[in-house]
Amino acid sequence: MPDILDWTNSDLEKLDMATYEARADELAARLREETGGGRLPFLTMPYAAQLKKELDTLKDFLKGFDHMLLLGIGGSALGARALQQAFYPQQDQPGHTGPSLWIADNVDAYALEAYLAKLPPEKTVVVTVSKSGGTIETVGQYFILKKWMQHHLGDAWSKHMLLVTDEKQGFLRGEADSFGIKSLPVPDNLGGRYSVLSAVGLIPAVFLGMDTDALIAGAQEVAAPLTDPNLTGDGLASHSAFRLAAWGAALQDKGFAEMIFFAYIPLWASFGDWFAQLWAESLGKEGKGSQPVPAIGVTDQHSVNQMFMDGVRNKACLYLTCPNLPAGPKFPTDLPDQFSYVRGKDFGELIQAEGLGNRMALSMNGVPLVELKMGSDGPKQAGKLIALLGAATILTGWLMGINPLDQPAVELGKRLAKARMNADGLTEEKADLNAFLTADRDLREF
Amino acid sequence: MPDILDWTNSDLEKLDMATYEARADELAARLREETGGGRLPFLTMPYAAQLKKELDTLKDFLKGFDHMLLLGIGGSALGARALQQAFYPQQDQPGHTGPSLWIADNVDAYALEAYLAKLPPEKTVVVTVSKSGGTIETVGQYFILKKWMQHHLGDAWSKHMLLVTDEKQGFLRGEADSFGIKSLPVPDNLGGRYSVLSAVGLIPAVFLGMDTDALIAGAQEVAAPLTDPNLTGDGLASHSAFRLAAWGAALQDKGFAEMIFFAYIPLWASFGDWFAQLWAESLGKEGKGSQPVPAIGVTDQHSVNQMFMDGVRNKACLYLTCPNLPAGPKFPTDLPDQFSYVRGKDFGELIQAEGLGNRMALSMNGVPLVELKMGSDGPKQAGKLIALLGAATILTGWLMGINPLDQPAVELGKRLAKARMNADGLTEEKADLNAFLTADRDLREF
Repeated sequence: MPDILDWTNSDLEKLDMATYEARADELAARLREETGGGRLPFLTMPYAAQLKKELDTLKDFLKGFDHMLLLGIGGSALGARALQQAFYPQQDQPGHTGPSLWIADNVDAYALEAYLAKLPPEKTVVVTVSKSGGTIETVGQYFILKKWMQHHLGDAWSKHMLLVTDEKQGFLRGEADSFGIKSLPVPDNLGGRYSVLSAVGLIPAVFLGMDTDALIAGAQEVAAPLTDPNLTGDGLASHSAFRLAAWGAALQDKGFAEMIFFAYIPLWASFGDWFAQLWAESLGKEGKGSQPVPAIGVTDQHSVNQMFMDGVRNKACLYLTCPNLPAGPKFPTDLPDQFSYVRGKDFGELIQAEGLGNRMALSMNGVPLVELKMGSDGPKQAGKLIALLGAATILTGWLMGINPLDQPAVELGKRLAKARMNADGLTEEKADLNAFLTADRDLREF
Repeated sequence: MPDILDWTNSDLEKLDMATYEARADELAARLREETGGGRLPFLTMPYAAQLKKELDTLKDFLKGFDHMLLLGIGGSALGARALQQAFYPQQDQPGHTGPSLWIADNVDAYALEAYLAKLPPEKTVVVTVSKSGGTIETVGQYFILKKWMQHHLGDAWSKHMLLVTDEKQGFLRGEADSFGIKSLPVPDNLGGRYSVLSAVGLIPAVFLGMDTDALIAGAQEVAAPLTDPNLTGDGLASHSAFRLAAWGAALQDKGFAEMIFFAYIPLWASFGDWFAQLWAESLGKEGKGSQPVPAIGVTDQHSVNQMFMDGVRNKACLYLTCPNLPAGPKFPTDLPDQFSYVRGKDFGELIQAEGLGNRMALSMNGVPLVELKMGSDGPKQAGKLIALLGAATILTGWLMGINPLDQPAVELGKRLAKARMNADGLTEEKADLNAFLTADRDLREF
């Protein structure tokens, strides 16, 4: 089964697509330059062959553990969780006994205390993921887990650690060197939200027994035309990522300030959170960018769907489906008349019918919509989806005239938090903080 | 510790609050009429005393089970999940052995097959929640679970079922009557998204050992002034729910089309999904309503936060905090200089500092923000939060001139899905569907 984008209800005719389509030559040139210069490893994946070897080597090491505790936040966690939910749902089902992946992607004392109390150190590997090695939420937990491992395992502690960080620099690289901790690199120029198919996402995937080759192969299939050194404007214009980008940019010009990601592949629901980071952090700049709104089909038909249908008409939608989900059990044949329409049918038929019905209803309510129709829900398709959405996001950013690879606006809050904890320097932040805290406050008890 | 709304950074001075504040008398009269007429059981909770008795009786029955499988969707699931995540996190921690709650709130053949294969029928109670008794996603699973229970347990099947449905009518009420299945009512006029503190949310809560009395007491404390038969306009105007409603309505007039719900109480993150349904399904009508955007602090500082800070300036924010979260372990004292600012401090101090820093950064970036500062993260506070947000949502809808208690726009998709499955009638939908499916389609393989 092919993987298909259905553009029929995308409302292209109401958008100024031509302005963006006319820029295919320009963007093709930029792609040639950026991929040629090694600045888009998300697409070129120059690290793939070496990573495959390292992951193969790692497999035996990982077999020694029942638990993997992943310390990481944002892009160091969201891709891994999406893969876990999609391809290892058994951990969240009754009576699970196999390997378990725990993702500590918050500053949550309850969760951290629970891990310290409940994980068996001798059967646990702690994977710390931070490109810079300075992410305080992650490295802060590393400090505590390191002490904990040392306390329980003595000198063997470092054999229960795995570091995923910059190849050359940063605190975690230093830890790897000082204590002989196994480590894998985060490739240069690969930002967190683009890193799921590097060691960042694939170490957990290997631990859980996924087919990482298929994930990578899928991504490479989509990315290959974009990384062709002879890429032409016409070639780019015919690529689905470019068409999605032109659509994404043209929608914003018409005031579509939200992009729903409606996933009718239930196990892939967490790709919605992965996409939300990808789209929001890449495009939310200079007062521009559409807000990603992840939704789960059919579940959210009974939740936020009312707002999609009849709220402010500023929403477009990426609608993820797969016609080949499992059939599941059959509905009984002896149902009352009220339910006659499902008698004897496959349970799985219902999600397909609802997916179609709600998609059509969104269209009838004026929501421009592109259906991403996956031929299967296997790992190769997931790899294709990751590459398609990542490439589309980068190209959308370029068409919008912003940099899709940075995230400068999140720094202020971090600096203020450090000022709050009385870190050195930060004079201006400390003054601002002081003014903020000593302002007259309008407080109401409730 | 009191529970406080901090309005300091809500940008009231930039909004036309006066227009809405002037309507306090009108809304007080409407509240008197609606609560007096029994049409707002979310606030009056006339069922509370009887429910308490029934839950007490149920406790012994529920002790016989290790697993509860909850069949429900939308408001029949989101409140239960929020309570589960907040007050029973241990199920999702390593080595869990106590009671487990499984929520089947989708049409997911993988999940359903897993439950059928892995749940021990003799130790499982299936709770089916549907006010109308006709929700196909829920009742469809009930049919299959009923057969499964009958297959495994014979005549005892009905002792492993619990129905939460309309007191008098509907298919599930008929099942309760025909087979002597234990059942609890969903009170009249209590829509799904307002039902968490009825049997809908509290049966799972009791199963997991929560203090349901505290939940209800908290809600009643907030709701009491609003249900006073002598409520005056001044009385209403001084209530936080009304002020939130005026703010919510006034924001929309100024083009704030999104309402972020940023939860810096990690265990309460799922209240974001509960709030999203509440706000979206209540207010997304007639082209109005702000899109709820749930976010988790600090996690989403590393994800969608960039968009909040520097995307389209159409976002306001409810910011949920609790200064009394647990301290957690201490950071070691021997950290390198780069991390000197956390040396020897409590792990829990970090989330407080980040919560403050990011809140201040949002304010500096022009996001109107109200902080909901909970004195503790216990069940009474959760009850207060539920009542406050529910009441604020109803009042916002009234101020907007829409009905916050219905959800008419979701029906079209349902009818089209039924037409797709060839249900009787639905002539118009079948014709529309046929036209939709036979239109020229713009398909692109990728």
